[in-house]
Amino acid sequence: MGFIEQAAAIVGSAQVLTGSDIARYVDDPTGAYHSAPLCVVRPGSTREVSDLMALAYGMGQVVVPVSGNTGVSGGTFNEGAVMLSVERMNAVREVNASARTATVEAGVILDRLRDAADDAGLVFPVVFGARGSAMVGGILSTNAGGSNVLRYGNTRAQCLGIEVVLADGRVMDLMTALHKDNSGYDLRDLMIGAEGTLGIITAAVMKLSPKPAHTVTAMLAPVSLDAALTVLNRLQAASGGAVEACEYMPRSYIERQLAQIAGAREPFDAPHEVNVLVELAGDAGLSELFEDVLGAALEEGLIADAVIAQNDTQRAAMWERRESAAEVTLATTPALMGDIALPVDRLSDFFAAMRDRLSKIEPKAQETCVAHLGDGNIHYVAYSEANDPDLKIRLSEAMEGLVADMRGSFSAEHGVGLYKLGSMERHKNPVALDVMRSIKTALDPKGILNPGKVIPA
Amino acid sequence: MGFIEQAAAIVGSAQVLTGSDIARYVDDPTGAYHSAPLCVVRPGSTREVSDLMALAYGMGQVVVPVSGNTGVSGGTFNEGAVMLSVERMNAVREVNASARTATVEAGVILDRLRDAADDAGLVFPVVFGARGSAMVGGILSTNAGGSNVLRYGNTRAQCLGIEVVLADGRVMDLMTALHKDNSGYDLRDLMIGAEGTLGIITAAVMKLSPKPAHTVTAMLAPVSLDAALTVLNRLQAASGGAVEACEYMPRSYIERQLAQIAGAREPFDAPHEVNVLVELAGDAGLSELFEDVLGAALEEGLIADAVIAQNDTQRAAMWERRESAAEVTLATTPALMGDIALPVDRLSDFFAAMRDRLSKIEPKAQETCVAHLGDGNIHYVAYSEANDPDLKIRLSEAMEGLVADMRGSFSAEHGVGLYKLGSMERHKNPVALDVMRSIKTALDPKGILNPGKVIPA
Repeated sequence: MGFIEQAAAIVGSAQVLTGSDIARYVDDPTGAYHSAPLCVVRPGSTREVSDLMALAYGMGQVVVPVSGNTGVSGGTFNEGAVMLSVERMNAVREVNASARTATVEAGVILDRLRDAADDAGLVFPVVFGARGSAMVGGILSTNAGGSNVLRYGNTRAQCLGIEVVLADGRVMDLMTALHKDNSGYDLRDLMIGAEGTLGIITAAVMKLSPKPAHTVTAMLAPVSLDAALTVLNRLQAASGGAVEACEYMPRSYIERQLAQIAGAREPFDAPHEVNVLVELAGDAGLSELFEDVLGAALEEGLIADAVIAQNDTQRAAMWERRESAAEVTLATTPALMGDIALPVDRLSDFFAAMRDRLSKIEPKAQETCVAHLGDGNIHYVAYSEANDPDLKIRLSEAMEGLVADMRGSFSAEHGVGLYKLGSMERHKNPVALDVMRSIKTALDPKGILNPGKVIPA
Repeated sequence: MGFIEQAAAIVGSAQVLTGSDIARYVDDPTGAYHSAPLCVVRPGSTREVSDLMALAYGMGQVVVPVSGNTGVSGGTFNEGAVMLSVERMNAVREVNASARTATVEAGVILDRLRDAADDAGLVFPVVFGARGSAMVGGILSTNAGGSNVLRYGNTRAQCLGIEVVLADGRVMDLMTALHKDNSGYDLRDLMIGAEGTLGIITAAVMKLSPKPAHTVTAMLAPVSLDAALTVLNRLQAASGGAVEACEYMPRSYIERQLAQIAGAREPFDAPHEVNVLVELAGDAGLSELFEDVLGAALEEGLIADAVIAQNDTQRAAMWERRESAAEVTLATTPALMGDIALPVDRLSDFFAAMRDRLSKIEPKAQETCVAHLGDGNIHYVAYSEANDPDLKIRLSEAMEGLVADMRGSFSAEHGVGLYKLGSMERHKNPVALDVMRSIKTALDPKGILNPGKVIPA
């Protein structure tokens, strides 16, 4: 019997999909990758995942885990592999408001987890555009970032425990709800962000955070990026670290947003080069504190203008400006799309140097970006009408070389997948690459778990 | 030539210590372990560490890294090994106030890092009793905890980048100051907490946090541990997570503290069973908020009494009561010393069940503890005058069995070392143990890096 028949004996034949039934699994959301898997299997329990992996291990069958399929780096692309979808394992097993934890299965959609936390008077702070379809298994496997990393850290920082099925089907139970646990190597964090190449995450205990009583949201127009960082640091110092988000949008982005999005409005009466969405959350004293810092910054000439949201509608409009970034930037096909991270005080240096490189490579190119200013993550985008097949490569190498010079990362929050394998080869510390290869071989000796991703051959 | 002669050629003969010169390195601070190493070598640079490891690797010579030697789990015990001390690598290379980072070498003492952060108007939040001698290499290698984990996380959460020398002398440079970096497996967090068994951490980029403008410190007498947790959660909700520390001391501890420490005073006019030190930090509005929550809790009968520190002297006295724990609990040799972690809502269940087990094993035994209530970490201590050599083992197994039943950890913040090898064998998930062994073999195939620690044979 082949894999499909034996898999059907484990999960039931209705949960082994082939042919036209698998259409929605095979296209990468970016449109860059289209694959032809052997089949899609949809286990309903950890036990079934374990049995499927034991079967695959015995046969040497390649398996690619998939959850919400919202990744943009080709991490679930495969050819002839079994796609193991965790979508049916979608129980919110427990929300413990007293211990501030949520125990969830890998197929739980991010927004559902956020709502469950909210219902308990708490917050699950990971948030980004695809929150309505991304699932827990995927946000853990890619260590998703988003807009609140500044305050709460990335997905890794929200996870207390996980359950993982290994390549040979063994279940590694690390499902603890502990804030301190030094019992050996940190296997949890090794599995998080490994993009399904070391094991399949089937469930997790996530940390929930106190829901802030009061939120202040504003648009600021600092006179420069360095002035923006100064204002951010002052807000952090005055509030004891209450800044939740600090999102940079240059004038070039604002103009594209106004052109692309129906009903979009200027953030200020006059156009400004630097536009920053800032949000603080804490107690009721925040508003006064915020206005004090702002008043001083205006007086000193650090910011040219500021608008504070007066109600939820105004707040939503400010976030809508930022959250339409994917639609705005992809309206024209970019020649370069970066997801880079830099030390937070090097952003203005990067933009100056990158503009210089860009103008030399392609003088007619146009750039824009959105950036998580508080955590140094820039989604840098360049457009060109030049019909030059090498242009993408040259632009990418220019950007990544600059990032490497500044000790940044070519991969901030979107993962490596297939898309950044070349960058890993060129820019990751070669000793670190060797160590990754050793670990991969040790944990997946037959190379059946999402092979060819993350680590260049 | 032997190792000593060749090592002298690398670091200079003055930095290779033998005989009576190594006395201060060989005693474990608990007095439980005394070892006879081959020599102590004190490299002055990463290059020298690399050359020493390449030498050791070639000869199959066992190496045990050591920094402040303040660990209490026998992690640096060795027999016939080379002790590699990083104490001379003690430069604070850079404090970047704008990016909120400190780049430090492994031999920097914790208090010096804390002071350097303070001088820059920031805070390095890791704090515990041995802060005057523990070093960066050690606090990273053991993923040290302490009193501020509730707010800031443990040492792992404060680290952005590390430099590690591997078993064969190769240098793995992960020295980035990035808040988002998804470029492959999380090797940083794998090395942190590995107690020197996978590599030697030689330098790190640490994250600094905003210094809170205002601090509120108080002693509370909740009517029960569950009431204490309710009050903690209300304070977190009202302040948006501004609680820095929440430290539990039972009446039995207060009485021992009064008896042992000259000048110690009662926390309240009347004795209370549950005594909690709570500290919040944030903006000036905190005091009012704190008093509001407290007032309501008093009215509802959740707390019986409360004293708020009115000045730094009173605040220091409150912390002194908690920080004298090592002196207080070790004044008599305990029959059981636990460093356990539980889900934060299971503490009162644990104490009730443990008291029951204790009374059955040894009716005359006395118990006490201090606990980090906010993160579920209990330093549980029992005393007995019974002359029974098996008592320690029976008490330890009773405690660890209970902890396992509650999905807690037998090792919260003191590491495994030699002391908890048996606990790892009995209670750690066996699949996780196998994975740890695979990783150890993959990264240290000759087994020369701190062998026999962390992972049971």
